[in-house]
Amino acid sequence: MRKNFWIAIPILGILLIVSAMMIAAQDTAEPRPQVVQGVFATLPDVVPEPEDNPSTPEKILLGQMLYFEPRLSSSGIISCHTCHNLSLGGTDRLPTSLGHNFQTGGRNAPTVLNAAFFDLQFWDARATGLEEQAEGPIQASVEMNQPADIAVERIASIQGYLPYFEAAFPGEENPLTFENIVRAIAAFERTLITPNDGLDRYLRGETDALSEDARRGMEIVVQVGCVACHNGAMLSTGNLMRFNHGDDVGRATVTGEDSDEYLFRVATWRNISLTAPYFHDGSAETLDEAIRTMASVQLNRELTDDEVYYILAFLNSLVGEMPEVTIPALPAD
Amino acid sequence: MRKNFWIAIPILGILLIVSAMMIAAQDTAEPRPQVVQGVFATLPDVVPEPEDNPSTPEKILLGQMLYFEPRLSSSGIISCHTCHNLSLGGTDRLPTSLGHNFQTGGRNAPTVLNAAFFDLQFWDARATGLEEQAEGPIQASVEMNQPADIAVERIASIQGYLPYFEAAFPGEENPLTFENIVRAIAAFERTLITPNDGLDRYLRGETDALSEDARRGMEIVVQVGCVACHNGAMLSTGNLMRFNHGDDVGRATVTGEDSDEYLFRVATWRNISLTAPYFHDGSAETLDEAIRTMASVQLNRELTDDEVYYILAFLNSLVGEMPEVTIPALPAD
Repeated sequence: MRKNFWIAIPILGILLIVSAMMIAAQDTAEPRPQVVQGVFATLPDVVPEPEDNPSTPEKILLGQMLYFEPRLSSSGIISCHTCHNLSLGGTDRLPTSLGHNFQTGGRNAPTVLNAAFFDLQFWDARATGLEEQAEGPIQASVEMNQPADIAVERIASIQGYLPYFEAAFPGEENPLTFENIVRAIAAFERTLITPNDGLDRYLRGETDALSEDARRGMEIVVQVGCVACHNGAMLSTGNLMRFNHGDDVGRATVTGEDSDEYLFRVATWRNISLTAPYFHDGSAETLDEAIRTMASVQLNRELTDDEVYYILAFLNSLVGEMPEVTIPALPAD
Repeated sequence: MRKNFWIAIPILGILLIVSAMMIAAQDTAEPRPQVVQGVFATLPDVVPEPEDNPSTPEKILLGQMLYFEPRLSSSGIISCHTCHNLSLGGTDRLPTSLGHNFQTGGRNAPTVLNAAFFDLQFWDARATGLEEQAEGPIQASVEMNQPADIAVERIASIQGYLPYFEAAFPGEENPLTFENIVRAIAAFERTLITPNDGLDRYLRGETDALSEDARRGMEIVVQVGCVACHNGAMLSTGNLMRFNHGDDVGRATVTGEDSDEYLFRVATWRNISLTAPYFHDGSAETLDEAIRTMASVQLNRELTDDEVYYILAFLNSLVGEMPEVTIPALPAD
């Protein structure tokens, strides 16, 4: 008995250590799905649309045409697709966009991909909904530089367009309006959705849809607190948060209120590895740099190289299935 | 007998007149196909390609990516597709193109559609073949403004490209070269073909593929002599012809030879109704105007409104089936 007792103690000790190691290994290598349930969510199957602009195939087709229509710009060479390029993750991959007369815009073009899931549009939330968003760049002098009435006149001068407007907005006496132009564009944009990225599949139970490194990264962004802002289906609250970085005062440029200074809409993490450079001013050239800067400025934390490595693995797994879009034929003048 | 004779004369006369009317009606309303056999030809089924650049699916895919690649330009927003826009009949529908820094180019962008069937490229024939053509706009300071070595460096800096070059140019030690960039683009452009327009189908025996008006127009362009230059499968010889119109001296800008003054490559009529404005300087806003000017300057003939109407009907029938092109996903930086 006594002898057995003395043997049992080290055996028990070893068992305890091994168990602890196994638990530790499990914690780091395979975070249980419940860690992220309630933090992240899969991309919804249904895209929200406003009551006064229900999508129809005809409206989506017209919207696709107008999205690629350079004659919506005064120069005739800039379309929505110039800055929200579907070859480039729905952006232009420039720090800030080049528009009319090669003027430089003030901010980095946010991706059009999944933008349908945001209510607030633009970095400073100056528009609500895709329809209102689309009104901006067409008319902005540094972007497409075409006043609304001239845009309508230009499109109406292309005779082939009228049947498409009539089909998209049946029963309207005069369907060719600026309001309907942006409605059609918004309807098309609601098809630019990228489901089934690694996280979506992981959340649906496909455990190996995320690599071990990516799962470790997912744990870290939860632990260090990135998910305070980057959560939900868009990995973004979609709301304004303070980011005091550079000269741009964000929301305050719209409202003039001191309390709105440096408020910017939280960027989505979906397809983030496709949309460098980063931040409202495009000042972070790489995702690595963006991760470190955000942790430092927002969370007052210097990440280790290992932590950055794992977070990168997680963010790189957030590329979904790209929509397949065919170049539309546009009517002749 | 005598009585019958006097009756027979007017009957014979009437028969003769009716026959003449029937022949006349047939001549104007239904020109026999042999009128145009030997003048025009259907678009060939096989696209010619140079021996040292055979097309493969891998090369075409890479070429499609590079055709839409704005990072081939120094600004990062201009691609081949900017000026040779497949939504707009393979052109930009501008008098002369807008390029880097919104500089205006000197000439109207010729369509990329069916350009594979031309040996001589550019209005002044300064390149032979699509490969040599593609070298120009990438480097031209008023177009994409990217020197060849910088273009290669830029594309090579995007790591995702290398596997595509390796697949397109198997066995090459260093496949990522400027020569291969333009080879791939040319291979893609050889897929931008628009078969089965009205004339193609008419020539294959589908008599009603051309309207009565279009057939009348076809007769007129043969009769007045347009077909001296606008003939064959491209409805263009593809060679240089003198067109003394405006200040641009055409081929002489390349050679400096007086004898080359005002020589320009004959424009194709295929899809011509999609590619306004017209001429090397884009000075003719409409096809109507272009038809009248060409007849006047080249054939010293003022066309009647009726003649222009019928020629327009013929030219409008020359729109073929557009290639269906999907927006390619381009690798991230």
